[in-house]
Amino acid sequence: MDDFIFGTLATEELRLAHIRSQRGGISHSQRRLPRDPLPGQPVSLELSLGPEHPQQKAWVYWTNDGSDPAGANGQAQNGFVSGLEPIDSEWDNLLWGYIRHFRVELPGQPAGTVVRYRLAAEDVWADSGAFYAYYVDNDPPPDWTKDAILYQIFADRFFDPAPEFPKLEAKPSLKCNGTLRGITAKLDYIAGLGVNCLWLTPIFPSPSYHGYDATSFYEINPRLGTKEDFRQLLDETHARGMKLLMDFVPNHWSNQHPTFIEAQKDQSSPHRPWYTFKTWPHDYKTFFGVKTLPQINLRNREAREHILGAAQYWLEFGVDGFRVDYCIGPSPDFYAEFRRVTRTTNPESWTFGEAVDPPDSQITFAGGMDGSLDFMLLEAMRQTFAFGRWNARRFADFLSRHEAFFPATFSRPSFLDNHDMNRFLWVAGNDKRKLRLAALCQYTLVGAPILYYGTEIGLSQERDMVQHGRAIHEEARLPMPWASSAQDKDLYAYYRGLGQLRHERPALRRGRRETIHADDSVLIYRRVTGSDSLVVVLNTSEKPATVMLALSEARECFATGSDCGIEKTDSGLRLHLPPYGGLVLG
Amino acid sequence: MDDFIFGTLATEELRLAHIRSQRGGISHSQRRLPRDPLPGQPVSLELSLGPEHPQQKAWVYWTNDGSDPAGANGQAQNGFVSGLEPIDSEWDNLLWGYIRHFRVELPGQPAGTVVRYRLAAEDVWADSGAFYAYYVDNDPPPDWTKDAILYQIFADRFFDPAPEFPKLEAKPSLKCNGTLRGITAKLDYIAGLGVNCLWLTPIFPSPSYHGYDATSFYEINPRLGTKEDFRQLLDETHARGMKLLMDFVPNHWSNQHPTFIEAQKDQSSPHRPWYTFKTWPHDYKTFFGVKTLPQINLRNREAREHILGAAQYWLEFGVDGFRVDYCIGPSPDFYAEFRRVTRTTNPESWTFGEAVDPPDSQITFAGGMDGSLDFMLLEAMRQTFAFGRWNARRFADFLSRHEAFFPATFSRPSFLDNHDMNRFLWVAGNDKRKLRLAALCQYTLVGAPILYYGTEIGLSQERDMVQHGRAIHEEARLPMPWASSAQDKDLYAYYRGLGQLRHERPALRRGRRETIHADDSVLIYRRVTGSDSLVVVLNTSEKPATVMLALSEARECFATGSDCGIEKTDSGLRLHLPPYGGLVLG
Repeated sequence: MDDFIFGTLATEELRLAHIRSQRGGISHSQRRLPRDPLPGQPVSLELSLGPEHPQQKAWVYWTNDGSDPAGANGQAQNGFVSGLEPIDSEWDNLLWGYIRHFRVELPGQPAGTVVRYRLAAEDVWADSGAFYAYYVDNDPPPDWTKDAILYQIFADRFFDPAPEFPKLEAKPSLKCNGTLRGITAKLDYIAGLGVNCLWLTPIFPSPSYHGYDATSFYEINPRLGTKEDFRQLLDETHARGMKLLMDFVPNHWSNQHPTFIEAQKDQSSPHRPWYTFKTWPHDYKTFFGVKTLPQINLRNREAREHILGAAQYWLEFGVDGFRVDYCIGPSPDFYAEFRRVTRTTNPESWTFGEAVDPPDSQITFAGGMDGSLDFMLLEAMRQTFAFGRWNARRFADFLSRHEAFFPATFSRPSFLDNHDMNRFLWVAGNDKRKLRLAALCQYTLVGAPILYYGTEIGLSQERDMVQHGRAIHEEARLPMPWASSAQDKDLYAYYRGLGQLRHERPALRRGRRETIHADDSVLIYRRVTGSDSLVVVLNTSEKPATVMLALSEARECFATGSDCGIEKTDSGLRLHLPPYGGLVLG
Repeated sequence: MDDFIFGTLATEELRLAHIRSQRGGISHSQRRLPRDPLPGQPVSLELSLGPEHPQQKAWVYWTNDGSDPAGANGQAQNGFVSGLEPIDSEWDNLLWGYIRHFRVELPGQPAGTVVRYRLAAEDVWADSGAFYAYYVDNDPPPDWTKDAILYQIFADRFFDPAPEFPKLEAKPSLKCNGTLRGITAKLDYIAGLGVNCLWLTPIFPSPSYHGYDATSFYEINPRLGTKEDFRQLLDETHARGMKLLMDFVPNHWSNQHPTFIEAQKDQSSPHRPWYTFKTWPHDYKTFFGVKTLPQINLRNREAREHILGAAQYWLEFGVDGFRVDYCIGPSPDFYAEFRRVTRTTNPESWTFGEAVDPPDSQITFAGGMDGSLDFMLLEAMRQTFAFGRWNARRFADFLSRHEAFFPATFSRPSFLDNHDMNRFLWVAGNDKRKLRLAALCQYTLVGAPILYYGTEIGLSQERDMVQHGRAIHEEARLPMPWASSAQDKDLYAYYRGLGQLRHERPALRRGRRETIHADDSVLIYRRVTGSDSLVVVLNTSEKPATVMLALSEARECFATGSDCGIEKTDSGLRLHLPPYGGLVLG
């Protein structure tokens, strides 16, 4: 069994093509310092020219009034133009040539400014003509997000509170009939886990059971309920001190969306430019070639306002933020406005992206959103705890490099699985010891943990998601089993304990992390903040482990099971860990 | 026909393996700033750890008394130890992991100090255990080297002044019987070209005709003459105001060298550690697997002193410096001592390396030698002028990037060909227009031009150097034809003119270079220093070109031929260039 997380960069061939195109091209790729500028702070932009681009001059065309920059050959037609200076050349052994670096500094701007820009080397636009933008503000993620424990609910799969009633319409999938009321009914169950933030997969009207193909961004899927149901869910959620995040899908929606139907029918429709027709009406840009998922042209002002309006609408409705689906899809300049809208509508809102991409891509969303889902950590945790391919030393080293790469103000919600991949428990061979250990690690790292519905009661799969070379996503989206006999209550209690631990200990939510020890099997790290401090000990191997810890005194405050032991000796504590055992001390 | 210059990095596969090993390893790779430190100047060293190296700590062990540094786990056993600080992590899409960067600053040292160092990540040595060193001094290349025009003589192939006399011994190759007296006899011929510096291929005793497999570094090959002959050659050379460089081969010599014969015969020989025997006596390190060319172990102090002694010996004998063969072979720490010996023996000596390697490798010799042969420019000039694969725009762009990469104090002698590759004229299809244009370019760039013997009278080849997949080097080393009928006197006069031009115009030798114009066909650049300035115009294409130059007045001071024309117009000069035509104005 293999784990295909990063599909577009899964093979060396794909990676090389990506590197070649980025390093070999006329490339800005959002090399901007600072990425998320403060009011008045100048911003340095870099441009590089691969060996086959002989342009001698480079410019940035930019505006600070929200309009599109325009210009050519160093003359601005709208806004400003600034010349870039050549900095140095770098030899590249893959491209077998010099990469030339240029740089320019744009002046600082007042808070609330959206700076929009494009770079060009002589008459060639950088990055195939991409538009970029940044939003000037002093806006780190809201404080509450550091305390968040999230629960991801696949709306259709969660709970049907009235299975005996007739449904509004036939379901495209019969596996479950989850509704918003069903979620409301289970809020105490969720809150019991220490969860204080829900993330719902899309609840917009949609022909599919998953909802990633909306037909409206301003309505609720009638199969899931009504706006009143959603209002009630929100109220009940907030009443429990919990937040709620929606799944926001700005890149594409259904080909049944009224604007798309109209754009395909009527060549002169004002909605036609909301899409990118290569040849009207049947050849248009889509999400990964799926004809039912036309891509929204967010360079079109009306389309963009429609999408931004939806973000504003739901924040005003009361939601607390968004998980942004396929955030690498929209034009990068979209996010400065997304930031402006989300932060001005609700300064306490939280937004993070889903970019199934490596860290150098993740980091480009700094400033546009509060962060992004930590796919790299996901891969590392699965390699270490589920597959056993990475030993503790390699995982420890990954962690420290990974943490050093991202600024502290960049949210990196952590997860062991989601609705797009085999569940962790499945790839761990349904070995719950591995899940417990991985969860212990996840809950004691910096990023806010996300729990995928069902994991807490041992929901796994019937078959692998990949069948005959095709991904059957439903396998990882089985209905939540509510029958008491189908739920692992011990595991629920374990997750509840993890939640409590995280809430009780500020060091886990706000502390720095330091590796104390890592060998082939055992990883020990400390979390420290102010007066709080604790030590996490993880045995990643299939063998029992004994490890010495130079501490004279320590309280066990959490363990994967009762078979973990602490023995006091003259030279410190001797810790006994069973296979896949873990301990928290302090 | 293809041009295989960079054999060890000729294919993408080789390049990827090289990148993987360098970026993926525990790698210093001489990332040292400054590379060539001045007295008292602190030196920053960088170390990077590829994704699979989980070490958390790194140290540099170093000495400043000439002895080898030694130590382990952060404890120095000889000299000093300094801990490196982790700086940041960089995501690498090829390796699919983070590269971790460490840095340390070593304190400045007084002039004349050799600082020797090794880096380690915990208990693993960087770069497979390499020893590095730098020599502290304020020693830019001697001033005369900026005025140098070099002539490369393949000693055996040049001139036999007494063909009727019996030879000292049978020649391994019968194509020629060149001698040192033969070179002396032709010094006026050489000086007539404006050449002021000879570089002789090895003249040490050797079983081969080429001499790269010496049996002594302290003697003269009797087939070429005696030390008296060499003394006379040197005196006559110096009498003409010319310099003479020897070819120095520190990496390997002949398996007939007495020390190697002894080392192979006697397991307890003190010369055995002069070599690296994997299994004594038949399995030993060689130059590219050639058993007749054992590699000298320059980590052995006696072997190193023997080699350094030879450099000192010949400098004291009167030679003016060295071209160092296969300079990437010896342990990198060799060059700090090589620098010390060459500069203290003759502060006016010039040394440059032969590294058939890309610029990131060339630059590592800064400080150890004055520079290195400009192989990258060689490739670019052949691609542009001989093969016509690069247009003028691409070549111009290459030039500016290439010049920006190297510090001005790094000598980059330029050449169109040498004894290890097809002659330029051969790969140019024997089209002398292409050679003239390329030579005009070469002589008007910054680096000191090297003329390979025979090029000036149109010597080409009988066959391609590559026959049935094998390189027959003799094809590029044909005997110098002295018969008047075999010499292109016009070409000689052309080269003589180029030599005069370079000597007359300080802008060509010491000026900066600026591209004025480059299009698909024509490249125009300016050379400027102080009060001197000139403009070089090159038509790299097979079609005539007309180009406007915004100069009201300009004197033609050199041209590839009389078919170049200058026409005065109201808006400047209109230049007419035939195919492969070139002009110098100013």
